[in-house]
Amino acid sequence: MCCFVGHNSFSVRSHTCGELRSTHVGEVVTLCGWIQYQRYIEIAKLKEFCDVPVESVVKVMGKVRRRPAGQENMNMPTGEIEVCAETVEVLNVCQKLPFEIKDFVKKTESLRMQYRYLDLRSSQMQYNLRLRSRLVMKMRDYLCNKHGFVDVETPTLFKRTPGGAKEFLVPSRDPGRFYSLPQSPQQFKQLLMVAGIDRYFQIARCYRDESSKPDRQPEFTQVDIEMSFVDQAGIQALIEGLVQHMWPDEKGSVSTPFPSMTYEEAMRDFGVDKPDTRFGMKVSVCQTFFSTSHRLSVWRKPTAAVIYFHTQKFLLLEDGLFDCILSCSVDFQQEVSVVVVKTDGTWKSPLGKMEFLPLADEYAADVHKALSFRQRPLLGKLRLYCAELLEEKGVALRDPTAFHFLWVVDFPLFLPKKEEPGELESAHHPFTAPHPEDADRLFSEPHKVRSQHFDLVLNGCEIGGGSVRIHNASVQKFVLEKVLKEDSSLLSHLLEALASGAPPHGGIALGLDRLLSIIVGASSIRDVIAFPKSFRGHDLMSGAPSFVSKEELRPYHIDVKWPAAVEGTEQ
Amino acid sequence: MCCFVGHNSFSVRSHTCGELRSTHVGEVVTLCGWIQYQRYIEIAKLKEFCDVPVESVVKVMGKVRRRPAGQENMNMPTGEIEVCAETVEVLNVCQKLPFEIKDFVKKTESLRMQYRYLDLRSSQMQYNLRLRSRLVMKMRDYLCNKHGFVDVETPTLFKRTPGGAKEFLVPSRDPGRFYSLPQSPQQFKQLLMVAGIDRYFQIARCYRDESSKPDRQPEFTQVDIEMSFVDQAGIQALIEGLVQHMWPDEKGSVSTPFPSMTYEEAMRDFGVDKPDTRFGMKVSVCQTFFSTSHRLSVWRKPTAAVIYFHTQKFLLLEDGLFDCILSCSVDFQQEVSVVVVKTDGTWKSPLGKMEFLPLADEYAADVHKALSFRQRPLLGKLRLYCAELLEEKGVALRDPTAFHFLWVVDFPLFLPKKEEPGELESAHHPFTAPHPEDADRLFSEPHKVRSQHFDLVLNGCEIGGGSVRIHNASVQKFVLEKVLKEDSSLLSHLLEALASGAPPHGGIALGLDRLLSIIVGASSIRDVIAFPKSFRGHDLMSGAPSFVSKEELRPYHIDVKWPAAVEGTEQ
Repeated sequence: MCCFVGHNSFSVRSHTCGELRSTHVGEVVTLCGWIQYQRYIEIAKLKEFCDVPVESVVKVMGKVRRRPAGQENMNMPTGEIEVCAETVEVLNVCQKLPFEIKDFVKKTESLRMQYRYLDLRSSQMQYNLRLRSRLVMKMRDYLCNKHGFVDVETPTLFKRTPGGAKEFLVPSRDPGRFYSLPQSPQQFKQLLMVAGIDRYFQIARCYRDESSKPDRQPEFTQVDIEMSFVDQAGIQALIEGLVQHMWPDEKGSVSTPFPSMTYEEAMRDFGVDKPDTRFGMKVSVCQTFFSTSHRLSVWRKPTAAVIYFHTQKFLLLEDGLFDCILSCSVDFQQEVSVVVVKTDGTWKSPLGKMEFLPLADEYAADVHKALSFRQRPLLGKLRLYCAELLEEKGVALRDPTAFHFLWVVDFPLFLPKKEEPGELESAHHPFTAPHPEDADRLFSEPHKVRSQHFDLVLNGCEIGGGSVRIHNASVQKFVLEKVLKEDSSLLSHLLEALASGAPPHGGIALGLDRLLSIIVGASSIRDVIAFPKSFRGHDLMSGAPSFVSKEELRPYHIDVKWPAAVEGTEQ
Repeated sequence: MCCFVGHNSFSVRSHTCGELRSTHVGEVVTLCGWIQYQRYIEIAKLKEFCDVPVESVVKVMGKVRRRPAGQENMNMPTGEIEVCAETVEVLNVCQKLPFEIKDFVKKTESLRMQYRYLDLRSSQMQYNLRLRSRLVMKMRDYLCNKHGFVDVETPTLFKRTPGGAKEFLVPSRDPGRFYSLPQSPQQFKQLLMVAGIDRYFQIARCYRDESSKPDRQPEFTQVDIEMSFVDQAGIQALIEGLVQHMWPDEKGSVSTPFPSMTYEEAMRDFGVDKPDTRFGMKVSVCQTFFSTSHRLSVWRKPTAAVIYFHTQKFLLLEDGLFDCILSCSVDFQQEVSVVVVKTDGTWKSPLGKMEFLPLADEYAADVHKALSFRQRPLLGKLRLYCAELLEEKGVALRDPTAFHFLWVVDFPLFLPKKEEPGELESAHHPFTAPHPEDADRLFSEPHKVRSQHFDLVLNGCEIGGGSVRIHNASVQKFVLEKVLKEDSSLLSHLLEALASGAPPHGGIALGLDRLLSIIVGASSIRDVIAFPKSFRGHDLMSGAPSFVSKEELRPYHIDVKWPAAVEGTEQ
């Protein structure tokens, strides 16, 4: 246990087991805790205590004394002392355990989830949850005490967003009417700016029904922030200060300002909008180069992507790279070939031995032009896969103790719809303001408008997204009606709010679970959440979600519509 | 705006309008804000600014100067200075307002709710929300920094409690399976103690579907606390310290320890389990006295309640008391008569003039015996009603600036079921531990067992409830199966947890909304919630809950079952 002042206040113990030191020798102490290991017991009256199983809960009163000479353990902070028990009270007997509670005992994920209350006794999970509490407290201190932010709770029973396919529904007792669990407090935080709250934050519970994603958490937490009279640089500086203030000492220091990169640069050099900048290996498209080379006319197909390594000579095809490339080819419907440049200047490639031709400067502009959203993600994915392969081979590519923060800025405001490429949809959400330099284009060439959206990236993971918002009612109406072709009446309360003295405002939301999982080095956000859901969104401890009787559904005026197959098995 | 250090950081303003003082004279400042009043504008280049409507948002750059002699306003902290504007930029024009945003303009509740973002601009609502943020921060500081509590977020998508009629349902994509929004994190907080978290707290969002209550909020917030190795006195001392630490200076001071009263005393003297102890006027039942008096044989009916005042001679029947008594009589199915003792010792009563007979000491024990749960609540209700009447008459009964905290302890563990008086149900929840003095009775006379539950009462409102919990699996199983006749398999995860080394533990939950509403003197908790629901559970701003299409329900395998009448109107 950690060493807060007052962590024994109001308790029947006098100290925690972990805080006793040689300075306590001679003191009579009362300790409470769990039996971890059985050692010999020397006092006759405590004999019965020998039979109490491990993980039982006991209260021990006794005197702190020095360990006998030779029995000290200098690797433990408590290793110089022991407590000579005078009385022992068994507060609760541990009857049985599904697994041993020792850090070295490996458990399956599902067993951990089913007995989460035991899994949480592990030192790693204790560290994760206690660190989470500590860091959140430091964030609150920074926002609330240092910078005048107001912590405001916003509702989670709200109105359905039209087409909000990812929003959980909550039936009400009014027939046919449903609340919805919002994906974020976006509307409320903007309304709070109209309300003159000036600086809002909330550690906000958010909900997302993503049945398609395997590692989903139906509820998650974001650090939600909004400010009036601020620009993008102001929000970024606030967040840099926040990260620095909350950063745990044991994880090194964070230097600010964070580097920044445009969306275009990120896509061009890393093939992704959340680059892992802990290593280089930038991707480049040499399409022009190849398609003008007579000797490589086979490459002229405009959809072909080429993986082009010129330093990592030891990355061979048998490493699984080829399989990965094949699977990427299928995913992205792209043809892929690998060209490996050897140290002697020759190329290794399925196309045979070729002479090395450095990319001429005159092609640099063409490379940029040739940037294609269909090729870049593929290259970006292969870059990460190659990094993993190299690390498996023992190449120290990414420092596991390094934390590389990065701003990605100047995202497009709109993107073509996947199903209807002639129509536009918001790249992020419809409340994002256009980039000041592109403001006029909004009305003429909306597809070319950059936004004031920006992402915060840490080690290749998006951990936050922010933007300056539209504060002008007519601009917001134009975006909703003319660009997005949406029914703006469904957001009439927001439009009315913007028309009644909305200040310029902007904000950001940080994904708390993801941020913490990166800080503690966890492979899943489940390791920084006390009671997470399983891959399939189930609570394996209680069995939620569970069946509910017809009677219990009646007040909500709903009926289960069993799918045909299931209905069959029910009968 | 308040005066935090750093509340202008990262902003385009240099100062807030409210913080400028004569010490700033000569400084060039940039201010942002809303136009409150139009005054003359002396500089030609700012003329156009005259036409901008109030509540528009502007940015003003200019120099702070002393107000001309005679124009100072010493009632305002900023009253010595003014800012001579050099540039004015209109950031957003306020197009129209549904009502004037001035504190003196009275709005209807529904208008306030529909335009909540404007209602929140009032100084009272700004105060309420900012105070809420400040007090919650101080609570966190006390719990987290001073006493080693760990802030743990628990899930809100959980398993349906069997018979949990007040739990909202959330349909999942698994046919027939539902999550439930829990009424409190009760199970999780106990599991966290089993998990060795030792000291847990959470400012927890809770949900309760109480269609029957008029002033309900379907979601509300509680300060949720649980500790291991603690007894009732420890939890109470923790909370007393918490209240003292968070208490706002401007509301006086709170002295501790809080007075304490047993449930039996509260019911006997105040007719309610949450007595308003800001005034006396204790109720007493003189049934024995009356039923043994020959002259008052009419009172012999054992169900009759008598209102018996002996000081408030000016409280007359025409004050509406009689109406209230009549309505209470109906509510409680009790006969009621009023006996008013005059200063000359005579009685005023519908029964005619009677001689004053002081209650003999020998009857005191009988009075106690005669305590009846059917009479006490009626008397308690009339006591409060009388207090209101007296205050309307100008009697200073309750100090509006007084805050009377009170512990009510020793509640019964079980109560007879209303529908089935032969069966028992938990007075609070089935995890409450029996009173140590009554522990053995649990197995023989459960209806006589007192619990380790305790309530915190402030000015006659229950603002918190806590208890020491059952930590022994077999006791918990006995309570569930033998006393409450429930299917314990539905709580098998909790029983298993108790059997795997659960420490003794207890905790409390404070109703944050209620507590804050009393501190700020609001008549409704809606005044301390940023975006509350209406009386009927609706969001009047967005129209939630709202209708959802059949298509949107399909992924959740549910259908609306329209009530016959509504179905008719649909066709």
